[in-house]
Parts: sequence; structure tokens; C-alpha cells
Amino acid sequence: MKIEMLSTGDEVLQGDIADTNAAWCGQELNELGLSFSRRQTVADNMNDIVDALQQAAERSDWVLVNGGLGPTSDDLSAEAAARLTACELELNQDWLKQLEAWYVAQNTKMPESNIKQAMLPKGAVMVDNPIGTACGFIVEHAGAKLIFTPGVPSEFKRMLKEQWFPQLIAAAPNAQAKVKRFYTFGLSESSLSDRFNDLALPEGVHLGYRSARPSIEVKLFYPREAPEYEQLSQVVRNELADHVFTEDQGNWALHLQQLMIAQGKKLALAESCTGGMLAAELVAVAGSSAYLDRGFVTYSNQAKQQSIGVPTATIEQYGAVSIETSQAMALGALKHSEADIALSVTGIAGPSGGSEEKPVGTVCFTLAEGDKCISQQLLLSNRSRSVVRIMSTAVAMDMLRRYLTGSPVLGDYQHLKRIDSADRIL
Amino acid sequence: MKIEMLSTGDEVLQGDIADTNAAWCGQELNELGLSFSRRQTVADNMNDIVDALQQAAERSDWVLVNGGLGPTSDDLSAEAAARLTACELELNQDWLKQLEAWYVAQNTKMPESNIKQAMLPKGAVMVDNPIGTACGFIVEHAGAKLIFTPGVPSEFKRMLKEQWFPQLIAAAPNAQAKVKRFYTFGLSESSLSDRFNDLALPEGVHLGYRSARPSIEVKLFYPREAPEYEQLSQVVRNELADHVFTEDQGNWALHLQQLMIAQGKKLALAESCTGGMLAAELVAVAGSSAYLDRGFVTYSNQAKQQSIGVPTATIEQYGAVSIETSQAMALGALKHSEADIALSVTGIAGPSGGSEEKPVGTVCFTLAEGDKCISQQLLLSNRSRSVVRIMSTAVAMDMLRRYLTGSPVLGDYQHLKRIDSADRIL
Repeated sequence: MKIEMLSTGDEVLQGDIADTNAAWCGQELNELGLSFSRRQTVADNMNDIVDALQQAAERSDWVLVNGGLGPTSDDLSAEAAARLTACELELNQDWLKQLEAWYVAQNTKMPESNIKQAMLPKGAVMVDNPIGTACGFIVEHAGAKLIFTPGVPSEFKRMLKEQWFPQLIAAAPNAQAKVKRFYTFGLSESSLSDRFNDLALPEGVHLGYRSARPSIEVKLFYPREAPEYEQLSQVVRNELADHVFTEDQGNWALHLQQLMIAQGKKLALAESCTGGMLAAELVAVAGSSAYLDRGFVTYSNQAKQQSIGVPTATIEQYGAVSIETSQAMALGALKHSEADIALSVTGIAGPSGGSEEKPVGTVCFTLAEGDKCISQQLLLSNRSRSVVRIMSTAVAMDMLRRYLTGSPVLGDYQHLKRIDSADRIL
Repeated sequence: MKIEMLSTGDEVLQGDIADTNAAWCGQELNELGLSFSRRQTVADNMNDIVDALQQAAERSDWVLVNGGLGPTSDDLSAEAAARLTACELELNQDWLKQLEAWYVAQNTKMPESNIKQAMLPKGAVMVDNPIGTACGFIVEHAGAKLIFTPGVPSEFKRMLKEQWFPQLIAAAPNAQAKVKRFYTFGLSESSLSDRFNDLALPEGVHLGYRSARPSIEVKLFYPREAPEYEQLSQVVRNELADHVFTEDQGNWALHLQQLMIAQGKKLALAESCTGGMLAAELVAVAGSSAYLDRGFVTYSNQAKQQSIGVPTATIEQYGAVSIETSQAMALGALKHSEADIALSVTGIAGPSGGSEEKPVGTVCFTLAEGDKCISQQLLLSNRSRSVVRIMSTAVAMDMLRRYLTGSPVLGDYQHLKRIDSADRIL
């Protein structure tokens, strides 16, 4: 089955919007054992769109058209579909009714420009959009089916999941591949590639890597009915060892939440350079209140002293960015909360504030439980303030994951230089 | 000048990576008064890549090729360029030396697979990559220049900014457009479009909208030498009124930081449903320590009581999500910090936890200074936990921006329903 995608719109071509829809859909198709044969982006220009539709329809079975269904004058997709199929636009009464009802529910008057969104090419099959004002539609042309979809990502995704993928699966029931996913932390892509270079893979099986800071995802693609699937998964698992944060799902916070709840423990956080990012990452998962007791964003030294009792002398003697201060923060967070385990992060996110002894990227971490402290000082890449903070958040999460699963809390990180560490209170 | 972009790689075509490079570059070109005439994505297949390069070179002046310069066997771009120009790959000694030096500096042995990254087509001009292992290069073919660039976004962006854009500007010195940007909050795209529908614009001038939750950016594009530029900017500014968060730069946290520092005030935060997201957003800007005193992530009721002294009776009587509790949180954050102003957020981010009276999306906010409290209870879209939290963070930031600039603190938000408000301590 040949599938291609045509994204329309100056805002995509000129980059005002990244084409995350295309990326998402490519991944989803992959899991159905399907793939795009081609992707194109054209501007909001009627002739260009109609030409591209014509060519795409001639060479493919399905053309996924995205964007251009909005209420404004530069939204041309419905008109382009009408020209392609040489028919008129007509008012779709069903969709108009839904639109009007939606605005009534919002207590808002429907702007006149929205009526345009109910004008579909004659003969098109309307595709429902339960969460937006742009319905989709399907037309047939030159032996292909063309599905027109809205640009808003949440609407696009839901429409495809509920209304297009089932059609594809029905048409290609044997295509689906098995995908085994390992979400790793602390390895580099080159070294992963080197590591698996000599691995002999059966016909049709391949490994893929996806780097999405802070994680690298290792994917093992399998044809549907392969008997060696489990065995080969185990080979990959053994090779990645304790660098695997999660399998099959990439939500680290969810994994930590499950581990914490299973062990009946509560967590407190004391954050300096991450400034709430660690807490926000954990709270992103519904149900986090079951284990996350509280967080202290102790950005100033005063806050460290007053809110969690870090001794002034510790900061003065060792500096705010030191293993000693990180330990005092973690122990202080334990003392000033109801938590069993505390994590602290204090570092120099930059771009300024570094010194020769402690350059930008220097970050100290402590995991504390009871009177036990495990600490490390790392030198992270100082590529940007944002990278330092994202990587710091990831390291803290990784320490907790390792602690809860019985792995060494101080991981063997390839690209994060360990300057110092401590396995007890200093 | 005709410019097109060719992205290579299964990981882009299949969506393992969103093509943010293309989006970014499209925007940058736009500001130079240039634009892509076309964008394509092809898979990691030698024949497809060479074909696409040949066609692109024939119809364009510049072809920006992105990706495929990595160390692994599916990185084909250099080989494709060699085939296109019918020449051999040869080892570039300069780049090999830089590579080796880079690994020495990292205290790591260079993996053998990296040598491939120093193999360039004979006659190609090497383009330096100061922050990565893949150098770029330029070859000429069929009257076009083809620039090959690495896929890693930070490397790609820096290479283009430092080494490609200057060449484009030199070749098209008069192309540059003026762009005036307004970053708005609280208006919908439809209503913006309706609002400006009747605005008569001079030849060559146009308005653009970019929706990037939580903001909508309104852009006024101007040809280089237009005398009415200031006047028309003022018309747009007046129309958007106090919905404009920032002009010209979209970093809200930076704007708040400048306002807070200018007024010599310190800030404390008390976050429940946003769980540190608000603090993290503010800390993302270097120098935030100058005004951000601290944050309390008081996710549990106990944390609200113990860390910032919210009375148990208030939570019991009005609920954790109430204007009363949000006021107690903000006043408590003031009391337990050195700050002048406090912001609090408490709400139901979902997907569960809602009730008929307070459905998912119900969020209460208070801005407090001294014994002054300004509060509101909004009903945000309950589309997802993440959307509720992002929008809550934005509302809190907007309240602070409005307060510091003398606008009404409770904005006239189109898509956020106000359930209740208070301009004093209840």
C-alpha cells in the first residue's frame, strides 16, 4: 500500500509551525507495519496544491493531506479538492449544526468566518472532528483516496487514530510489525551503534535509534510472526544492561511513580538549578500526588537556609554547588517534609556563573533516605542553560530509578563526566 | 534566489524525528526576506537521494541538504554527493584532526565509526562544525550550490547561522523584510483573523499568525523600506491592546524578569497543579536569581499546611481548589519567604479528580503583594492534563505581567471561562 503525505501551508513551509503531525503519523504508520513513501510540503497556493494532489493521487493508494481547513482566506484545501475532482463546494448541514452547537456550549457567538469550515466538495465523505471546528473529509480521485485533515495536532491525531488507521489496518491486516523499545540513559548513539554492529539479525529484523534528549530509544523491529523475538529482545536487553530506564513506554515519570507507589514511599525534592523542572516532570503524570509529597525550589541561598535548613556555614565553606550543600538540601527536604526519600539538585546552569574550578555544567546531586546519602558531582555539557537543566533533571530521575530497582545509583554515564562522588554523609 | 530543502533519513520520513530543522530554517529565511520554494523528505536510500539531489540542483540556486552525515551505515549523504558529482570520497585531514582532538578533550577513545565523518567528496569545501563530529560541506552541481549539513539541531543551526546565511545575505542584500511581532495571550486565532479582516494593508505587507500554545504570535511583514511601518504597527498594537505579552521577542519569562528587576521586587511561588512548571519556566532565563526568591511545590494538602501555613480549616471548608485556598497559599508564600509578590496556582489538572461543581480544568490563581490579593477561578479547556498545566502557568505569568505593567490583572480572556474572581482577601 503506497501512502504519501502532503502538508500544505506557508506556515509549515516557512517553518512557523514544525511539521510534528508528519513525524507523529510516520511513527504510527511504522507501528502498523506501514510507511510513507514520500512527504512533501507546498505553500498556500491553489495551483501548487492542486498539482501536488494530482501527482500524489496518480502514484499512491492513499494521500494524507494535512492543513488548510481553517476559517481564514489562506485555507485552501477544500477548494483545491473541489477543483481536483471538478465539482462544487456545498454546505454540509451536519457539520454546520455541530459547529453551531459547539459555539453555543462555549457561550460564544460563532464568528462568521467559521461557516467556511462546513463547505465541503460535493460527494466528499465528512470525517468527524470531535474536538475542533474543522471537520475532515475523504474524496476519491485517480484511483486513490485522499483524506483531508486539520492542522491542529490534537485534532489531527485523534481523527487519524479513530477514523483512518482502522481503515488502513483493515486494508493491510498482515502488515503490522512488532516493535520492542528500550529507553536508555547515559549511552551515546555512536557507542550504541558500535555495540550492536556485529549483532547478526534475522531477515526482516532491524534496529533503530531515536535520540530525544535526555533519552536514546533503541528499537527492535520485528516482522509479525517471528519466533526469535523474545530471545533477541533479551540479547539487546543484556547489552544495554542498567542503562535501560524503561521498556515499551518512554514515560520515565510514570515508571518512577509506579516504583514509588509499589514500595509505599513518599518523595520530596530540593531543586536549585533545575528550578522546579524535576517536580514539574513528575507532576506531569496523573496520580503523582500518591507519592510526591512536596518540592522546594530553593533558588536563592536564603531559601536554602530558611526553607530547608541548609547551614550557612556549609554554603560558605563549600559553595552552593557542592556535594556538601546538595546533601544538606536533601536531608533538609526530608526533615521539612513527610517524605521517605529526597532528591536534591544544585548546579551551575550558565551561561555565566562558572569558575575554573566549577565551570558551567557542574551539577551536584544527592539521593537521601533516612541517614543514607548517595551523591555525585558531574560535569554536564555546557551547550546551553536548557541542556544543563534537562540533563540534570534526567540524572536525578535516573538516580531514583536506579535506587528503587537495586542498580548502582551512580551510573556508568558515557557523556557525563563524574568529578566526584560520595556514598555517605560528608 | 530559489532555495529548496531536502531532508534525508528514514528517521525523519518515518517520524522518529520531527523536522524541526526545516521549520527553524524556514523562519530564519523568512526574516532574510527569502523562502523555501519546496521541501521534500526522502528515505535513506542511495538512488532516491541521488535522484532527488539531481532534480533539486537542476531547478534551484541553493539546495540545503540535511541529515545523513552521522557515523553509521545508514548515513549516506557524503556518498550520495560523490555519486552526484561523479567523484570519489577522500579523507579530509583537517576534519580528522579536529575529530581526534575533540575526543581527546572528552577523555574518550574515538569510536572507529567516526572516521567515516571525515570522508568528503573530492573537491567539496568543508564547512566547520564547532560543536559536533559531523562537518558540513558544499559541492556545486548543475549550476546550483548544495550545502550538506548535520541533522543534530544545535549543530545545524549554528552552522547555518555562522556559515550559510551570510552567503545568502551577500547574494541577496535587498531581500530582507522587516517583521514586527506581537506575542499575545487570551485571544483566539479565529477572532484575530476576524479582527484584522477589514484592515487595508499596503502592497507587499501582510499579517501572519502563529499559534504556539499558550501564545498566539501576530506578525506584520513589511518590505524593507516602507514609511508606514511604525504607523501600521501602532494600529495592530492598539487593536491587540492589553493582550500583548511581549513585542519582538517571545520569551515571557525574560520580560517578567526585566519588569521585576526594574521594580526591585522579589517573587515567591506556591504551586499545586502546575507542580513546579511555573518556577521552571522562570528559571529557564539566566539571571532569574535576581528576583526569584523561591518556590513551593505544595502538591499535597499537608505540604500546603506545613510549608506555607495554609489553615486546615480553609482547605476543609472551601477545598484545595478554591479562591480561598489560593489566597492562603499566596499569603503563606509571602510569609515564608523574602518576597514582595507571590503567585499561587491550585487546580484540577485531571484526567480524574473533577466534580460537577469543579470539573477538570478548574484552576484558582492569586497574586498577592502585602495584604493585597487579586484572585480568579477559571475553567480551562480540559483537553489534557498537560494543556491544563501549560495554560495555568501562562495565566499566572499573565497576571504578573498585567500587575507589573498597570493593566487590569484579570484579563479579558476569550477561551478561558472565568467562574469567579476577587480583588481582596476573602
